[in-house]
Amino acid sequence: MPRYTPLVESLPSTVPFVGPETQERARKADFKARLGANECVFGPSPRAAAAMASAALDVWQYADPENYDLKHVLAKHHGVAAENIVVGEGIDGLLGLLVRMLVAQDTPIVTSLGAYPTFNFHVSGFGGKLVTVPYRDDCEDPDAIIAAVHEHNSPLAYFANPDNPMGSFHGKDVISNLINNVPHGSLLCLDEAYCEFAPQEELLPLDVSNERVIRFRTFSKAYGMAGARVAYGIGHVDLIDAFNKVRNHFGVNRLAQAGALAALADQEWLRHVVESVRTSNARIAEIALENGLDPLETHTNFVTIDCLRDSDFAKRVVAELVAQGIFVRMPFVEPQNRCIRISSATDEDLELLAEILPKALSAAQSG
Amino acid sequence: MPRYTPLVESLPSTVPFVGPETQERARKADFKARLGANECVFGPSPRAAAAMASAALDVWQYADPENYDLKHVLAKHHGVAAENIVVGEGIDGLLGLLVRMLVAQDTPIVTSLGAYPTFNFHVSGFGGKLVTVPYRDDCEDPDAIIAAVHEHNSPLAYFANPDNPMGSFHGKDVISNLINNVPHGSLLCLDEAYCEFAPQEELLPLDVSNERVIRFRTFSKAYGMAGARVAYGIGHVDLIDAFNKVRNHFGVNRLAQAGALAALADQEWLRHVVESVRTSNARIAEIALENGLDPLETHTNFVTIDCLRDSDFAKRVVAELVAQGIFVRMPFVEPQNRCIRISSATDEDLELLAEILPKALSAAQSG
Repeated sequence: MPRYTPLVESLPSTVPFVGPETQERARKADFKARLGANECVFGPSPRAAAAMASAALDVWQYADPENYDLKHVLAKHHGVAAENIVVGEGIDGLLGLLVRMLVAQDTPIVTSLGAYPTFNFHVSGFGGKLVTVPYRDDCEDPDAIIAAVHEHNSPLAYFANPDNPMGSFHGKDVISNLINNVPHGSLLCLDEAYCEFAPQEELLPLDVSNERVIRFRTFSKAYGMAGARVAYGIGHVDLIDAFNKVRNHFGVNRLAQAGALAALADQEWLRHVVESVRTSNARIAEIALENGLDPLETHTNFVTIDCLRDSDFAKRVVAELVAQGIFVRMPFVEPQNRCIRISSATDEDLELLAEILPKALSAAQSG
Repeated sequence: MPRYTPLVESLPSTVPFVGPETQERARKADFKARLGANECVFGPSPRAAAAMASAALDVWQYADPENYDLKHVLAKHHGVAAENIVVGEGIDGLLGLLVRMLVAQDTPIVTSLGAYPTFNFHVSGFGGKLVTVPYRDDCEDPDAIIAAVHEHNSPLAYFANPDNPMGSFHGKDVISNLINNVPHGSLLCLDEAYCEFAPQEELLPLDVSNERVIRFRTFSKAYGMAGARVAYGIGHVDLIDAFNKVRNHFGVNRLAQAGALAALADQEWLRHVVESVRTSNARIAEIALENGLDPLETHTNFVTIDCLRDSDFAKRVVAELVAQGIFVRMPFVEPQNRCIRISSATDEDLELLAEILPKALSAAQSG
């Protein structure tokens, strides 16, 4: 057997998420609706798709390892310098690099109990010790995060805003206060994957002079390019430059870069998606209410629905929906796992949901 | 400042390779011919390009994190089980994962002096200590590699076959012997990125029962998909499974997977590329000879040319070619850096090379 490092030897062989395709193979049937991974069913900008298609014949060339064009266009879009932006293989890839930069054996790292599992996967993968604080009223709790960072002298804390899996959102005053309370020498990882769906006037403006925060954005959600694996971090120039020590320089797919450039240029499509998501979320909430469930307020492209009973019940509802051809997921831990989570979807998908949810609830009740 | 790990703090902010785009921006002009990165100028299979283009609208979906379809088709292609294959974001990405699995602070890792810099980048990035052995007669030296593994009790050695940057190749008897001499508990990383260009009857058959070797293959070279970032490792099921501990499960681009499937199905295009490369390499050798230089034998999609003088001269030749619009690279260390390296190219590209090389040599001679 190869001599793995003691750390790697100690890790389980695991996946943060089981993909819908794995479930499809297990049930020997495709899903009729794909509402479980907060993908953007409204698709990418047709201009982004066209850009990727027309770049296909150029795929024999490696992409520019500096991601120069994309970084510069993003910089202009956000009113920062290109040196404040690092482009990577999805937020998952960037989280892995960030964790690697800050986490050694037994380093305590702070996050919310039930927040993004892939962040936890990376922390464990580099030997860190997770310190988790509970959600408060179904929101991530800034005060508890900061208290834990102080208590454990942690170099890194994770905070998603808007949050997944609950869909909640903190406005700019809360986030500004959170960042200001991060101790010097610690870093807040602010995952803003869903920020395009939040009230834009309530998003905290960027301040790249602040060394205590890095903000992650992605083309996977509102831009509808989850399969392309392209996202970016915005932060202080020194922090951004440090990614060059560890990143896979030629790692970003060439077509993805072409697609991201075109997607960013098509802000009209983005508005169309955001509007479609809003309409869809209202319909999901309506379906939940019609079934006697409680849809939580959302600032994302999904609606988390309180099933108003215990987690066993919610798990049975998810299992029934999956069995009947609708891919959905649910929060992982108490007390959020009394809920199920439905991604924004097309009218057709939601008609199917309206038809199948009552049956799933009924089956779960008698289960 | 964030509290980086001592290891990351100690690393330089660096790139293993400067991209041609960086050079184009510096010289404020595009290259006329791109012969420096061993890309496949003959392009991907048109069927692969079409598959990527038609997958573009589906990019809103994450790719299957198991890469199930691609793994199974590759397994059939190679006569192994899907459990013997790990798909990743190019060989660069897979090398990073492999190194992470085996390299801790100060772990001695063996490679050839002047071999693939990205492997070295990863080893240093995880705190390993590189042990390098010289090339012998412009070939990687299996005996020296094995001796160094024994001497330093190293858990990992890198060996490229065919080799980059020299283009040389060891047949199956040599490689079989090399693998058999790897001590138990150590692993040979056999990088076969260029294997489709080598004499197929001289490639060592796969033996996935052997825990002492992992073999890497890629869609970046003969399959013409460098920008797609998709490659794979073939090895013992336990080793392959260990990648699940650390890999970015959703990391492989969805279009890349569609393209790779189509590329693999189009073996006729592969034969066309291999034949085109052979013709091109013969022409490159001819041009070298016409200019009084010595083209080395090659089993890759490039020709390494001995300029028959010192490294300063070869550097001037490269600089002149670059200045006149031809992107080329050269080996990094003595004595291989008496050479320049020209990637296989179109007739048009090589006409340009034939025109510019004499001028570059003349300028370098008077430089």
